[in-house]
Amino acid sequence: MSIQTAGRMRNVRRSFVREMLKAAARPEVISFAGGLPNPKFIPVKEIGEAIQQTLAEIGPAALQYCASEGHPLLRQWIADQYVAAGLAVSVEQIVVTTGSQQGFDLLAKVLLEPGDRVVVEDPTYIAAIQSLGLYEPQWSPVPLDEEGIRMDGLRAALAENANLLLCIPNFQNPTGISYSASRRKEVAALVRDSSAVLIEDDPYGLLRFEGPSLPPIARGAPQRSVLFGSFSKVIAPGLRLGWLCAPMELMDRIIIAKQALDLCSENLGQWVMHRLVSGRFLERHLPAVRNAYGRQCAAMIEAVGRYLPDVRCTRPEGGMFLWLTLPEGLSSMRLFELAIEKGVAFVPGQAFYTCGGGERTLRLNFSNCEEDRIDEGIRRMAAALDRMRGGHVPR
Amino acid sequence: MSIQTAGRMRNVRRSFVREMLKAAARPEVISFAGGLPNPKFIPVKEIGEAIQQTLAEIGPAALQYCASEGHPLLRQWIADQYVAAGLAVSVEQIVVTTGSQQGFDLLAKVLLEPGDRVVVEDPTYIAAIQSLGLYEPQWSPVPLDEEGIRMDGLRAALAENANLLLCIPNFQNPTGISYSASRRKEVAALVRDSSAVLIEDDPYGLLRFEGPSLPPIARGAPQRSVLFGSFSKVIAPGLRLGWLCAPMELMDRIIIAKQALDLCSENLGQWVMHRLVSGRFLERHLPAVRNAYGRQCAAMIEAVGRYLPDVRCTRPEGGMFLWLTLPEGLSSMRLFELAIEKGVAFVPGQAFYTCGGGERTLRLNFSNCEEDRIDEGIRRMAAALDRMRGGHVPR
Repeated sequence: MSIQTAGRMRNVRRSFVREMLKAAARPEVISFAGGLPNPKFIPVKEIGEAIQQTLAEIGPAALQYCASEGHPLLRQWIADQYVAAGLAVSVEQIVVTTGSQQGFDLLAKVLLEPGDRVVVEDPTYIAAIQSLGLYEPQWSPVPLDEEGIRMDGLRAALAENANLLLCIPNFQNPTGISYSASRRKEVAALVRDSSAVLIEDDPYGLLRFEGPSLPPIARGAPQRSVLFGSFSKVIAPGLRLGWLCAPMELMDRIIIAKQALDLCSENLGQWVMHRLVSGRFLERHLPAVRNAYGRQCAAMIEAVGRYLPDVRCTRPEGGMFLWLTLPEGLSSMRLFELAIEKGVAFVPGQAFYTCGGGERTLRLNFSNCEEDRIDEGIRRMAAALDRMRGGHVPR
Repeated sequence: MSIQTAGRMRNVRRSFVREMLKAAARPEVISFAGGLPNPKFIPVKEIGEAIQQTLAEIGPAALQYCASEGHPLLRQWIADQYVAAGLAVSVEQIVVTTGSQQGFDLLAKVLLEPGDRVVVEDPTYIAAIQSLGLYEPQWSPVPLDEEGIRMDGLRAALAENANLLLCIPNFQNPTGISYSASRRKEVAALVRDSSAVLIEDDPYGLLRFEGPSLPPIARGAPQRSVLFGSFSKVIAPGLRLGWLCAPMELMDRIIIAKQALDLCSENLGQWVMHRLVSGRFLERHLPAVRNAYGRQCAAMIEAVGRYLPDVRCTRPEGGMFLWLTLPEGLSSMRLFELAIEKGVAFVPGQAFYTCGGGERTLRLNFSNCEEDRIDEGIRRMAAALDRMRGGHVPR
């Protein structure tokens, strides 16, 4: 007898990004596909030293289970960052998660029943679609403009008894768009009066290379907001450590869901993160990262302008991604196939849409590639585009 | 407006074990409550060395994301162990999980809809109740006898279109009971002809200090069995690394669910585990652990016999737990309150039952306590029991 599986698995797409990463793993391929930090900014030496110091000082206790909520000092440091950003947050509101990705499952478990309405940016983070999608919501995708999620669409979507709203206000994945200060306030005002909980996902906020930092949306709607943060993009993704910060009203249930998922997140890594961040490692580390990512981003925008003159491109102020829109009638999925043959990879945009669309769009990662490779990669994309057009290139 | 939460959260108890651990954390309390390995057997030095070697050889790649399925060499090592135990398992069937705890959520996500029937040992592992319980199953608890789950009860439960059966055949948590060779075969035969998938959870199998190792139940029903394993009890729980081994038919969906949960498990730890196990660390490490746990178990059984002569006690051949049954009319929950006052902690048995019962039972952990403390702890339990009986102690 074949095994009967649950209905929730039927409509879920396998992570396209991860499948892409496999196609892009051949060494001759220049990959703009993943969302990886540049390996040269993964602080191998500092992590190694912090591990040795932790093991020497703490011993086996650093390798036992820890509390489901996470390491108390690390949670306190996280709460302190929010307080510094003007949010009245206490340590009890923080849970360390197994990557901020885990937060999506935790919140969905606590909040969503099948058919509940989830409002997302259109397009939005692919692995959030995947994670929340397993809870069988109704999607309400709302388009973005240059200042963030569009207010007309958001107003209409929240009016329909929405349960959850996901926003990525800093250098959004996949588009690179950031919310303006006024849009943040407008969104918060709508959330305050809605039935929805806001998830404000901010894995890239510390990677701003241009313009001033802006306060989180949550500051205007603290009773209905859950903030997600991550060490993956600023220290190392492989340690799988992120966090969430939720209203006290939800904490008991979030902690139950966390216990049920994996009892606790990796303990040694939490000691190590606390040692690094409390020793002001980020203050020393991030200026060089921001500087390099800013240069890589500029090089990519410049190369797109030069080699792909009729392709539209966003201008991010930070983060890891550019978003391209091909001219009318061209498919980014088809371009992907040709691009792989030419030795360059990216993520076709369709995968970031919950309800279809985006056939002409694609995401480029600029963080994980040096400037000369960026130039060569965009050149290869142009060659693939030429080929798709049968050699008729606009000049 | 208060936040509306999902129905699945309503009936879930907060992990009793974790609440206990808090009560038991006062330094003067002798704790038999947790399920922790003895800290003296957490190989801090070896883990530290393996981390440094990995960082030196692999560099930043050991701190990036890895494949959702896990580190290929570690998965191969795990598959090899099953092959050596007589199972025809390929590397494609293995997923590294964030503790074997994560396997419960993954399997529930892939297999369970609300109201589906889940057959469990009665009593069973508390955090499995919590994790599977979030998927709102109907529980079919089946009592244990000295050879494992009872066949009459199992036959009846599986006949009702069960979707999942959870068995812990080696030194079961909480009872310490192990399945006999013949019971394993009988269970497998029933599973083969049923609609259910067997989860065979085996975190303690390598901690056998008495009697011969027995083949997994799964060997008799490979098409319908998922095996769970863990590095937590034999190396270190804080690294949060376990695995599952599932039929190929389920792998695509399990990997989707894993991606959605946390993208991948901690990468550096997987390199470290592979370095340790492929260097035959377990072969060098485990004899001393088994020996010590065997002595600790014997000391606890001996102390129970001496100080608690009318209390029934299991006789495990391995693992970490003893299971006690108080005389008629006595409540282990009440005893817990008095015991904490006397400076000793354990887990009252009720929490391990899905549908009530077990008021007289309790679980004792013997792995995380030296022999002299074990003796003193059981003496304190006897004093608490005296107190509960108003000083009238049977001799």
